[in-house]
Amino acid sequence: MRSIIDVLDLSVNELDELIKTAEDIMENPDKYAEKCKGKQLATLFFEPSTRTRLSFESAMLGLGGSVLSVTDGATSSVAKGESVADTVKTVSCFADIIAMRHPKEGAALVAAQSGDIPVINAGDGGHCHPTQTLADLLTIHKEKGGFDNLTVGLCGDLKYGRTVHSLINALSRYNNVKFVLIAPNELKLPEYVKSGVIKANNSEYIETSSLEEALPKLDILYMTRIQRERFDDKDEYERLKDSYILDAEKMKKAKSDCSVLHPLPRVNEINADVDSDSRACYFKQVKNGKYMRMALILKLLFDNYTQKDEEYITDKKCTNVRCITSVERGIKHKFILRKSDNTCRCIYCEAENK
Amino acid sequence: MRSIIDVLDLSVNELDELIKTAEDIMENPDKYAEKCKGKQLATLFFEPSTRTRLSFESAMLGLGGSVLSVTDGATSSVAKGESVADTVKTVSCFADIIAMRHPKEGAALVAAQSGDIPVINAGDGGHCHPTQTLADLLTIHKEKGGFDNLTVGLCGDLKYGRTVHSLINALSRYNNVKFVLIAPNELKLPEYVKSGVIKANNSEYIETSSLEEALPKLDILYMTRIQRERFDDKDEYERLKDSYILDAEKMKKAKSDCSVLHPLPRVNEINADVDSDSRACYFKQVKNGKYMRMALILKLLFDNYTQKDEEYITDKKCTNVRCITSVERGIKHKFILRKSDNTCRCIYCEAENK
Amino acid sequence: MRSIIDVLDLSVNELDELIKTAEDIMENPDKYAEKCKGKQLATLFFEPSTRTRLSFESAMLGLGGSVLSVTDGATSSVAKGESVADTVKTVSCFADIIAMRHPKEGAALVAAQSGDIPVINAGDGGHCHPTQTLADLLTIHKEKGGFDNLTVGLCGDLKYGRTVHSLINALSRYNNVKFVLIAPNELKLPEYVKSGVIKANNSEYIETSSLEEALPKLDILYMTRIQRERFDDKDEYERLKDSYILDAEKMKKAKSDCSVLHPLPRVNEINADVDSDSRACYFKQVKNGKYMRMALILKLLFDNYTQKDEEYITDKKCTNVRCITSVERGIKHKFILRKSDNTCRCIYCEAENK
Repeated sequence: MRSIIDVLDLSVNELDELIKTAEDIMENPDKYAEKCKGKQLATLFFEPSTRTRLSFESAMLGLGGSVLSVTDGATSSVAKGESVADTVKTVSCFADIIAMRHPKEGAALVAAQSGDIPVINAGDGGHCHPTQTLADLLTIHKEKGGFDNLTVGLCGDLKYGRTVHSLINALSRYNNVKFVLIAPNELKLPEYVKSGVIKANNSEYIETSSLEEALPKLDILYMTRIQRERFDDKDEYERLKDSYILDAEKMKKAKSDCSVLHPLPRVNEINADVDSDSRACYFKQVKNGKYMRMALILKLLFDNYTQKDEEYITDKKCTNVRCITSVERGIKHKFILRKSDNTCRCIYCEAENK
Repeated sequence: MRSIIDVLDLSVNELDELIKTAEDIMENPDKYAEKCKGKQLATLFFEPSTRTRLSFESAMLGLGGSVLSVTDGATSSVAKGESVADTVKTVSCFADIIAMRHPKEGAALVAAQSGDIPVINAGDGGHCHPTQTLADLLTIHKEKGGFDNLTVGLCGDLKYGRTVHSLINALSRYNNVKFVLIAPNELKLPEYVKSGVIKANNSEYIETSSLEEALPKLDILYMTRIQRERFDDKDEYERLKDSYILDAEKMKKAKSDCSVLHPLPRVNEINADVDSDSRACYFKQVKNGKYMRMALILKLLFDNYTQKDEEYITDKKCTNVRCITSVERGIKHKFILRKSDNTCRCIYCEAENK
Repeated sequence: MRSIIDVLDLSVNELDELIKTAEDIMENPDKYAEKCKGKQLATLFFEPSTRTRLSFESAMLGLGGSVLSVTDGATSSVAKGESVADTVKTVSCFADIIAMRHPKEGAALVAAQSGDIPVINAGDGGHCHPTQTLADLLTIHKEKGGFDNLTVGLCGDLKYGRTVHSLINALSRYNNVKFVLIAPNELKLPEYVKSGVIKANNSEYIETSSLEEALPKLDILYMTRIQRERFDDKDEYERLKDSYILDAEKMKKAKSDCSVLHPLPRVNEINADVDSDSRACYFKQVKNGKYMRMALILKLLFDNYTQKDEEYITDKKCTNVRCITSVERGIKHKFILRKSDNTCRCIYCEAENK
């Protein structure tokens, strides 16, 4: 039994396999139409995310399985004071696999440790959202034929955008990927990603605040929404939200085969006049996400796994207020020590303990 | 690919076919039990309507298909500022057909123009609700054997009641249908329906404020709820809401074969003592609605269509505050010119541009 | 057609059959995987209870049937003033069987009288919750091999806890069951259960306020949550909520084969350190609940029944403010007279009319 909390839980080989399976499902859907017959997926959502929930549910239904849908996690049992662990233990009495979304960082890992069925993290606060990254990777793979030697522009909110951090993590594992980090000063990529991921993998990167200057070099342009809910200072949000708007005019500066991705929903950072451009891949990305989720469900339900061994530190406490350990007593604090850079990070939210 | 926004999108011939299919499903459900295997219906509801949603979902399940259910459209992605068009484009990456309910007039048409799968309007504000009308029509057809030569009483809120306008529109297309319009002065049928629909089709009509006087003549009595949410002035609502209550006593004045319909939910406009009367057809109507939705889903998923050609005006702007164009920028204003009476109406909400 | 409102609607023989069926489903799930193909279960929830809803839905899906899910009963049609009876009549146009949860006592019986399909009470206020009791009974049966000669401890909120009352009712019908009632003075078992059920069945009972003293004697310990929402006085709740907390330390005093049950969700009345104890049965209980619901759905959909005849009194009115008759006009007041103790109880909420 294995769960997926972070896209990095998957090895490069496993990723390649998932992509291969997803592409096979797209071409031969009938071959897979009964694979999950008699299996039940629970979508356990403690905050709304219709897009992600529907993608999981559609994936499971497309495999012939069925769905238990919980859209009101936050207002139901939990309102009666139940812990995430108990909720997951209960749901695992009914379902065969869980896709869980929760506003607190680390909640997905708590879930994975609680039940005896696989848990897929469908987003835990600002922390991880691995199936979004799987959708991104399949899209890049389908558009470019692979990941090596790409110049990838990431634009918008690089500070809070978890999909960006996750994508950088995943792409850094391939050869000769160059990152162009396009962000206003206030929303630049955090140092721990730059040094801990990009530099650690010997990838190249450039930082710029100008989308227009960056555009001509890019093979991939990954746009992101500047999310109101990530800002403490609402004035800062109002000032920044329109900084990076892509439109048909700007697209003239992009390569003829530059693929434009966006995790959606967009507000106005990509103008509707880009939608009809053949380089716009963001709705393809939505479709690809469904197929990667199908591949992942199949993998977790039917493969046999052994968990990797790791060493942990348990005599410290996580101080991140957004971590699940800050709201639920009884969760064992646990840290993982990375020897390469001597950092110590909470296993639930990955915040560093200094 | 074709969508149904208004019941008038269907020709009289198509309506006859749908009725025939629905009646065949009722008699031979097993014949249809696997027709939609592998197909997914998304019920995309931006405002709650349990009755309509369940009818669509039960219809799809009865055809062997499966369902993606969105009951919280208004509080999920949209709360993050997403447009109806983007939501529909996304959902059309997962589903094969959409049934959509939205509080704004014209939202269903915007949806139909956005995705590449059929959209069924499950109610767009006070505008259209074609599958309710389909339920009404099947009920009349089953009870009366056809539509010609009927005297149809419509009682209650004829001003705001969209099901009434829609039913008048549909029935006016048949021969020698006579309408008896029973309403208080404040809730009379709007002039544009009277002249634009009833008179334009050369149908007869009488207006009265007395249900009891009208009753003895009617083959069909279509009761409606006086909806609190349609009133700006709540005092007016309180004064009018009990004006037209049908009970067992009043039913004595009706013909022995007068069929009583109601789109439901009722509050108190039909007393529970009418329920056991064999002329009460409103729960049959609910059941009929499901079978018409089954027929419609089959038609939209499996028939081949060509869209009718029409001429449009695009240099005007709709001023109706309830129209979807009033809340979402980026929707192209568009009007259709009817040569018969020289009116120009918004394609989204059908409000007249003067 | 038959509905289940109270666990006592089932005879001892019927209970035995259900248990037998549930155990057979657990051992041979494939045998039952298509039994309900083409059938639809509606889960009609007027208040949230994710656990119970998922259990029903998972049960129906496990039988090859499909599900219509209503989690927002309280905010949808009903918000427009619709009666429970009309909602149920409508839903029975779509579904083949209904599982209904409602905050008002007696609502399930109103539902059963309204539609023409079976209704399973999934909890009606503080009144009945028969499928929870079925889960409890299957768990006891599996752990102990039967019900006779058991000493059953019931701990916590015995005043408001409907699962406790229901379990006492069910177990009193077996031979030589001894009850140990463990509660603070304010939350003692009501007199009408003690005299009307335990004494009436000649069962033995002891009352105590000490969990630790009671523990060594028990074959079964049934823990309950002290529910905030049942208290008018919130200070009283705060003072009492921690009175009875079971932990690994206290478990040392229990018999080596004492089974610990809990209807869940728990807050802190059972410490997480008990979870790994092999005597902890509360998550098994959740799983058992699903299988009993499967057995019950099969019974109600496919067995043929005759209803028992009873005599009623209809010239009195129920005065219980939590009874469904207090909020919906038009429900016929009806009482059942028990000759054994000359009490007269409302058929909807079972409150006594004095």
